[in-house]
Amino acid sequence: MTTVDDTWSELTARMRGFADLSNVNALLGWDQETYMPLRGSDARARQMATMRVIRHEMLVNPRLGELLDRAGDEPLDRPRQEMVRLLRRDRDRAVKLPPEFVRRLALAEGRGAVAWRVAREEGDFALYEPALEEIIAAKRDEADLVGLDGERYDALLDQFEPGMRVARLEPLLALLRAELSELLAAIVAAPQLEQAPFEQRLFPDAQQWDLTMRLLGDLGFDLTAGRQDRSAHPFTQTMALGDIRVTTRIDERHPLSGIYSTVHEAGHGLYEQGFEPRFEDTPLAAAPSLGLHESQSRLWENIVGRSRPFWDHYAPVMREIFPDVAADITAEQLYVACNRVQPSLIRVEADEVTYNLHILIRFELELALMRDQLEVAELPGAWGDAYERTLGLRPENDVLGVMQDIHWSHGSFGYFPTYTLGNLYSALLWDAYCKDDPAAEDHIGAGEFQHVLGWMREHVHKAGAIDQGEDLIRRVTGSGLDHAPFMQYLWAKYRTLYNLA
Amino acid sequence: MTTVDDTWSELTARMRGFADLSNVNALLGWDQETYMPLRGSDARARQMATMRVIRHEMLVNPRLGELLDRAGDEPLDRPRQEMVRLLRRDRDRAVKLPPEFVRRLALAEGRGAVAWRVAREEGDFALYEPALEEIIAAKRDEADLVGLDGERYDALLDQFEPGMRVARLEPLLALLRAELSELLAAIVAAPQLEQAPFEQRLFPDAQQWDLTMRLLGDLGFDLTAGRQDRSAHPFTQTMALGDIRVTTRIDERHPLSGIYSTVHEAGHGLYEQGFEPRFEDTPLAAAPSLGLHESQSRLWENIVGRSRPFWDHYAPVMREIFPDVAADITAEQLYVACNRVQPSLIRVEADEVTYNLHILIRFELELALMRDQLEVAELPGAWGDAYERTLGLRPENDVLGVMQDIHWSHGSFGYFPTYTLGNLYSALLWDAYCKDDPAAEDHIGAGEFQHVLGWMREHVHKAGAIDQGEDLIRRVTGSGLDHAPFMQYLWAKYRTLYNLA
Repeated sequence: MTTVDDTWSELTARMRGFADLSNVNALLGWDQETYMPLRGSDARARQMATMRVIRHEMLVNPRLGELLDRAGDEPLDRPRQEMVRLLRRDRDRAVKLPPEFVRRLALAEGRGAVAWRVAREEGDFALYEPALEEIIAAKRDEADLVGLDGERYDALLDQFEPGMRVARLEPLLALLRAELSELLAAIVAAPQLEQAPFEQRLFPDAQQWDLTMRLLGDLGFDLTAGRQDRSAHPFTQTMALGDIRVTTRIDERHPLSGIYSTVHEAGHGLYEQGFEPRFEDTPLAAAPSLGLHESQSRLWENIVGRSRPFWDHYAPVMREIFPDVAADITAEQLYVACNRVQPSLIRVEADEVTYNLHILIRFELELALMRDQLEVAELPGAWGDAYERTLGLRPENDVLGVMQDIHWSHGSFGYFPTYTLGNLYSALLWDAYCKDDPAAEDHIGAGEFQHVLGWMREHVHKAGAIDQGEDLIRRVTGSGLDHAPFMQYLWAKYRTLYNLA
Repeated sequence: MTTVDDTWSELTARMRGFADLSNVNALLGWDQETYMPLRGSDARARQMATMRVIRHEMLVNPRLGELLDRAGDEPLDRPRQEMVRLLRRDRDRAVKLPPEFVRRLALAEGRGAVAWRVAREEGDFALYEPALEEIIAAKRDEADLVGLDGERYDALLDQFEPGMRVARLEPLLALLRAELSELLAAIVAAPQLEQAPFEQRLFPDAQQWDLTMRLLGDLGFDLTAGRQDRSAHPFTQTMALGDIRVTTRIDERHPLSGIYSTVHEAGHGLYEQGFEPRFEDTPLAAAPSLGLHESQSRLWENIVGRSRPFWDHYAPVMREIFPDVAADITAEQLYVACNRVQPSLIRVEADEVTYNLHILIRFELELALMRDQLEVAELPGAWGDAYERTLGLRPENDVLGVMQDIHWSHGSFGYFPTYTLGNLYSALLWDAYCKDDPAAEDHIGAGEFQHVLGWMREHVHKAGAIDQGEDLIRRVTGSGLDHAPFMQYLWAKYRTLYNLA
């Protein structure tokens, strides 16, 4: 006779297997972007596809279904209930996808990433188009196979923001777009902020690196349980709870770029380092959604990192670390430099006001693609139109336009909106934290980040994926997803900076 | 009806899967020794165990057996015949090992590596003993389960040196031991070689690194299809034919250490870079045996790298790269410094004469362990006795003794003898090359390594694993495994260096 214990011990072993595969994949991805020679690319894409197929086989294995059914029939404590829920969610999705489809999708994405790179180098969308066609066809098929009850895009969105639906998201983002446009119009009409002398100077790479390492430590990132490396596009990957890695990129002409890359990724890394150790190797050692994950990176990068108190603390550090180029630098200059608003073509360089407009453009195009209202060949034109309409700019070429992000070539459709959700969540969480800690800004001004980190640990990180994303927000902040706190935060900041009415 | 093409295309897909797993494992191992934070160790050990279990499941899958049977019934060209042979060999071994055993072994080895590290730090063999017991028990069981026709050790040896048997190896190594001891006695009786002033100086790390990178390029290692990093114990790993990585270690007090680490690993890396591209993702993109692989690293490190012409070329380079500490350095001084013979306790620091005596000690102990003539508790004593008998030295503690090598904690029994086989093969191959290229030494003196590399590519590398190890040697050199050419090489070198009779 099998007992609950037998069932659970077998499920535990299987959860460990999934954790191992996920951590191995994290290493494959980390290495691809940090140390792998370019000539390893094709093999790496196939290795990752093979790992994905192996994971799929483990998920659809009938024995896993039996174990989940059996476990579901037993009285379980809350964490185990949620483990079963999360495993079942992944399995239910996987059984709808035939193995040949999984391989087709993985290979299409592998080819997509290579085509994207080549097409960017050549500046020619036509070289990317067939691969992107293939990916989008596969994503449409995937959504149809998964077949959630709403519209097609829901099945893609649900992978990154479980439970979120277009019916809810689209009107919310329409409101946000209107209000962001209004704020942007007010800022554009105001006199532009001055440039400080330091913005024309070169900041040596080695000292910038030292500063980013110091920042990681200051913010509370445990460097004995992780590391920082360099990559063209910064990211965070988890190989184990004791091995969480962030990357940054350093540009001698733009010292703020490395600083904010590091602070952003530190936000992700601190989240991952904050999961309950007893949840390690279970589906609970994860954020409930990408939006929640992004709430942490954006909270640290923007609300903490682009605040005036942050620079009150770090302006003297800058003067000390860069005596040759920053001896005269002030907190106010740094605060202005990191908050200047300027409609531009490139998402990853955008300020806090225009950033989400970039996202909304991508959301609109993705939705049209999944509603069969837009075809790949029409994408560059539609991209240009959307930028002109939203930000008053049209890219001169597709490298500055539709080919700027790698996401679609990875098959990540339904991913972009989580960046905006992250901003909305971050404002909600920050407000809740400030209610509990009226001295929040003073702590930041004193370089004491353990207060905000402690609060996030307690209210957000430890819980892992026990709640769905919005349930966590509701539990912690008392209110559900809402764009108002984020808009209030932006208005408060920019009203003062730009002397708005 | 399935055709040969169907069979072969399915087999090809499965071979790709094995290649992917092997390359992924290579990355896990590479990262473990280069960049992984220590606190990732336990998770990494389990990830590697999980990958090993997945590989085992893929090997024992009955469908693979069917495909191999079907392919074996068809007329195949030579490469395909050998692919079937190699896959069948791996599968035949795997089906003898139950999955629970594979996991037990993998976990024992994972624990072993951790226990070894801790015990070394504490300098206490007792902390290592239980884990080593467990590993040795598992290796005995493994050998019994595999059950080759000879004695137990054969089943372990065969994994690293396919086809080699104790009945052949033991008498060969006994002869070698006697002749090495004779040479060593002659050298020890001769006046010791002088130390040069540079041997007391510090060689800056950064320039040493530059020198090792230059060496890699000089020897012909393609740095666009690989890279070099640092690790405590240098090694080579293959993530793809276009992504082959070596490591080195640099010690400011011992400039020769980094140089020879790099040259040794370059030998492995050049071999891997030299496989026929059409063999990629098949079992043919491999050396026939570890002994053959080691023949290449040792040929470059010792026969090429510790030769007088090598230093004729590199002494001026040293003077140029290290103007502060090596302005007065001569080729003769470098040649002497890298060839000084000195019985010592540590294998990896040994000279060419004593090196194989260290190996023979390990072989003798492994054999006794597998013949149930020695138990783990008796190992430290047996180790000390063997060192005293062979090299006239007894280690003061187990860190300098039985715990100096990581191999046993990885479960690598039957591995050490391949180092010695590598030396024997290297001398055979070098002689054959010199017959084809009488200007061999001149080329090295001119820093022109493309001749020896070209010859090895043509005769050794390209063939991959088409032949068994000794078959390749016989095909290329006209004679089988033999210790005489190696001893002649040593006598020729040391007779002159030490003015022996």
